[in-house]
Amino acid sequence: MDGWMSRDPQASRCQAVTTSRNYDRKRWIDVLMKVKIRKIDHFGFDENRTFQQRYLVADQHWRKGSGPILFYTGNEGDIEWFCNNTGFMWDVAEELNAMLVFAEHRYYGESLPFGNESFSDSKHLNYLTSEQALADFAVLVEYLKRTIAGAQHSPVIAIGGSYGGMLAAWFRMKYPHLVVGALAASAPIWQFDGLVPCGTFSSIVTNDFKKSGPGCSESIQNSWNAINHLSSTDAGLQWLSNTFHLCSPLKTPQDGVVLKSWLTETWINLAMVNYPYKADFLQPLPAWPIQEVCKFLKDPSLSDKLLLQNIFQAVNLYYNYTGEASCLDVSLTATKNLGEMGWFYQACTEMVMPLCTDGVNDMFEPQKWDFDALSEECYSTWGVKPRLSWILSMYGGKNISSHSNILFSNGGLDPWSAGGVTQNISSSLVAIVIPDGAHHLDLRSRNPLDPKSVQQARAMEICLMKEWIEKARHSH
Amino acid sequence: MDGWMSRDPQASRCQAVTTSRNYDRKRWIDVLMKVKIRKIDHFGFDENRTFQQRYLVADQHWRKGSGPILFYTGNEGDIEWFCNNTGFMWDVAEELNAMLVFAEHRYYGESLPFGNESFSDSKHLNYLTSEQALADFAVLVEYLKRTIAGAQHSPVIAIGGSYGGMLAAWFRMKYPHLVVGALAASAPIWQFDGLVPCGTFSSIVTNDFKKSGPGCSESIQNSWNAINHLSSTDAGLQWLSNTFHLCSPLKTPQDGVVLKSWLTETWINLAMVNYPYKADFLQPLPAWPIQEVCKFLKDPSLSDKLLLQNIFQAVNLYYNYTGEASCLDVSLTATKNLGEMGWFYQACTEMVMPLCTDGVNDMFEPQKWDFDALSEECYSTWGVKPRLSWILSMYGGKNISSHSNILFSNGGLDPWSAGGVTQNISSSLVAIVIPDGAHHLDLRSRNPLDPKSVQQARAMEICLMKEWIEKARHSH
Repeated sequence: MDGWMSRDPQASRCQAVTTSRNYDRKRWIDVLMKVKIRKIDHFGFDENRTFQQRYLVADQHWRKGSGPILFYTGNEGDIEWFCNNTGFMWDVAEELNAMLVFAEHRYYGESLPFGNESFSDSKHLNYLTSEQALADFAVLVEYLKRTIAGAQHSPVIAIGGSYGGMLAAWFRMKYPHLVVGALAASAPIWQFDGLVPCGTFSSIVTNDFKKSGPGCSESIQNSWNAINHLSSTDAGLQWLSNTFHLCSPLKTPQDGVVLKSWLTETWINLAMVNYPYKADFLQPLPAWPIQEVCKFLKDPSLSDKLLLQNIFQAVNLYYNYTGEASCLDVSLTATKNLGEMGWFYQACTEMVMPLCTDGVNDMFEPQKWDFDALSEECYSTWGVKPRLSWILSMYGGKNISSHSNILFSNGGLDPWSAGGVTQNISSSLVAIVIPDGAHHLDLRSRNPLDPKSVQQARAMEICLMKEWIEKARHSH
Repeated sequence: MDGWMSRDPQASRCQAVTTSRNYDRKRWIDVLMKVKIRKIDHFGFDENRTFQQRYLVADQHWRKGSGPILFYTGNEGDIEWFCNNTGFMWDVAEELNAMLVFAEHRYYGESLPFGNESFSDSKHLNYLTSEQALADFAVLVEYLKRTIAGAQHSPVIAIGGSYGGMLAAWFRMKYPHLVVGALAASAPIWQFDGLVPCGTFSSIVTNDFKKSGPGCSESIQNSWNAINHLSSTDAGLQWLSNTFHLCSPLKTPQDGVVLKSWLTETWINLAMVNYPYKADFLQPLPAWPIQEVCKFLKDPSLSDKLLLQNIFQAVNLYYNYTGEASCLDVSLTATKNLGEMGWFYQACTEMVMPLCTDGVNDMFEPQKWDFDALSEECYSTWGVKPRLSWILSMYGGKNISSHSNILFSNGGLDPWSAGGVTQNISSSLVAIVIPDGAHHLDLRSRNPLDPKSVQQARAMEICLMKEWIEKARHSH
């Protein structure tokens, strides 16, 4: 990866542009919360029922009649939470005279097609797909343009991060008549079957820890065997439960596997939110949290128990930075604002993202990618089987060069950059890498501690958005 | 409409190219008939059953490893029938070293997802949509490229006529990673809500009759009142039944309405198949059949009965050109190779095409476009309600300029050109009008009686296809 700087002549027009920095945290003006009736099934006519999709609108800075609409393509969580964690849109609203719209993804937050029954079985879950979500967005964009006075010719730009970034890119690909461009931040649209090596993700996580303190990744690497030793005896399991302050004690060696999965996910999450300032995305955390964590993990050669006591200190920083947790829960790894059930179902249907570890290029226990095991688990949990290649058939895999006006931004520290578009594909499919950025850092509010690389990335993002808007105006 | 000549500089590169004419009807070499297992529902995971999609392959002229694949996007009928009526693909296979593939549309021909139950109720019909059909095509193209030795890098061009032409265009729009371009012949992608006047269609039909003989359209125009008079009495109904040699006699004034609908559809069909040579598409017919029909309809001022006897002669030519029909059936207007049930369902769901008549600009009884009446009829027949604007949300309506490599051809005599793309949209969204062409004449085999305009259109089509293929080769 060559850093954020684009080598493409057209894209480079944007490199020189810098926006006036404004570090004063704006007080966010009231947002209008709305709901709109949607078809539960856009792709069939037998199910004609509807549900209420929630969306948020902020039009304080919108220039009626010509200002653009920045449309956040909601992902797997509560839209209010995403609204509060996408300060970039608020920061640029005034400069672009833009209306902000945050659209909630069906089956998340309050946009539940069947209320409490939405997750009850595969029949009720049948309408939880990216295609249905994009259709919701399409119909919402049309509704807004039709009903908001002065919005008829407003160019719409899709913006999203992570899965929402994938949706933003796909929205532009599939509905280019509705959005003039898309900013797809930290969007692993290539983290699918056969497109990228399954192990890169884990090696990025490992590198983040390696760079953040001597002995750090090695300590984690050594922790797995230590846990294996201790979880083989009842006394060891009890010691682990006490040492890690677990809410539910470990009882069998299988619980040791659960503990390891939870720790693995914790390190991954830390890599995703390794932001340069104090923040509260998945958890409340200090600046550069991996550096803080690594302060506990300097000596990988300690005995099992001493090593694991340090590992506890490390994860306790992640789960209990505020000091409010009375115990740690191995069934939780992140904010409850994310819809874990929904995402698990999506990962069991369309969003099959092969990941693996080898213990050589990464600090994890070796684990091959095992589609069959996933498929069985999915079938026993949801009664559905994942379709490995459908997402490639639908969205084109790596063969996307005929599309246009998509900006893919990636964080160099973010494991999801492994599946991201990190090289320009054409003059209008542009890639940015932010070497010091974690998971969609660029979508967060401006901050005095922002590294220069993210400031430059945002400047380029704004510049390209202006180009798309300008072009749309001329073509109108 | 400005004739077939394109005014765009890029497109005009193709005008000068003429292909060597070959009027010797080639004996079509054996076609391989195949079936492939498909998901019944591409867009949901609860229905995991499959069905067999039929497709035909002819690779006699294919240059393995580099030759293109011409992929016919099957429409509402038996794929063998379309295969036999799309001689253009056979005519160009050798010149392009192309493999021909004809893919059957689900719910038509032998590609019935639920066998005999496929049309039994709205549950079984739920997977009959253009989106599912396109997904079938997408998965088939991928399968062919994966499994046919030497096809991996073969550029694929979608070709279709009428609804199949719409599918070809939409296939390129939605799956540009799978097809390098599309030839959309007589594809009324704009015959939808609010995009074109609903009456143009009928006025084109009328003009075809007006131009084909003096008194012709006036005779038809006067026939409606004659039928109204006669169908108001039992004796009149009996006279009509005898005169028109109907298989089932008319019994009520309401049956007179059925007779008028049947006649209306007959005139429309004649306009669609007004080919310059003897042909058998919807029915076996002589060259320029409207001219033949109009020979019976020279005097519009005749009394009701004399006028209607002439009308009978005219429709008898359409239904009984071979002389084999012992009676005429007002429930049939065209070949049984078309899947009327399926199309009626599609017209009741996605494919809502507003049509109307005013009796001034056309020769029909005035009839306003009545969505509510259609909706009620659809609900009582199928238990589903049409969604008027969905197709616009999905495929962009008139706002399609960001797409590329689609050639829209239109027949000037074809009423469906009313909803077609008849003007260039960009250098790679090109429109052709063939003034002397009826419904997708250009897709038919070369014929000594072809007007020059269709020869030129085909030359341009071949030229553009070569450009797409060449470009795909270079970009590979």
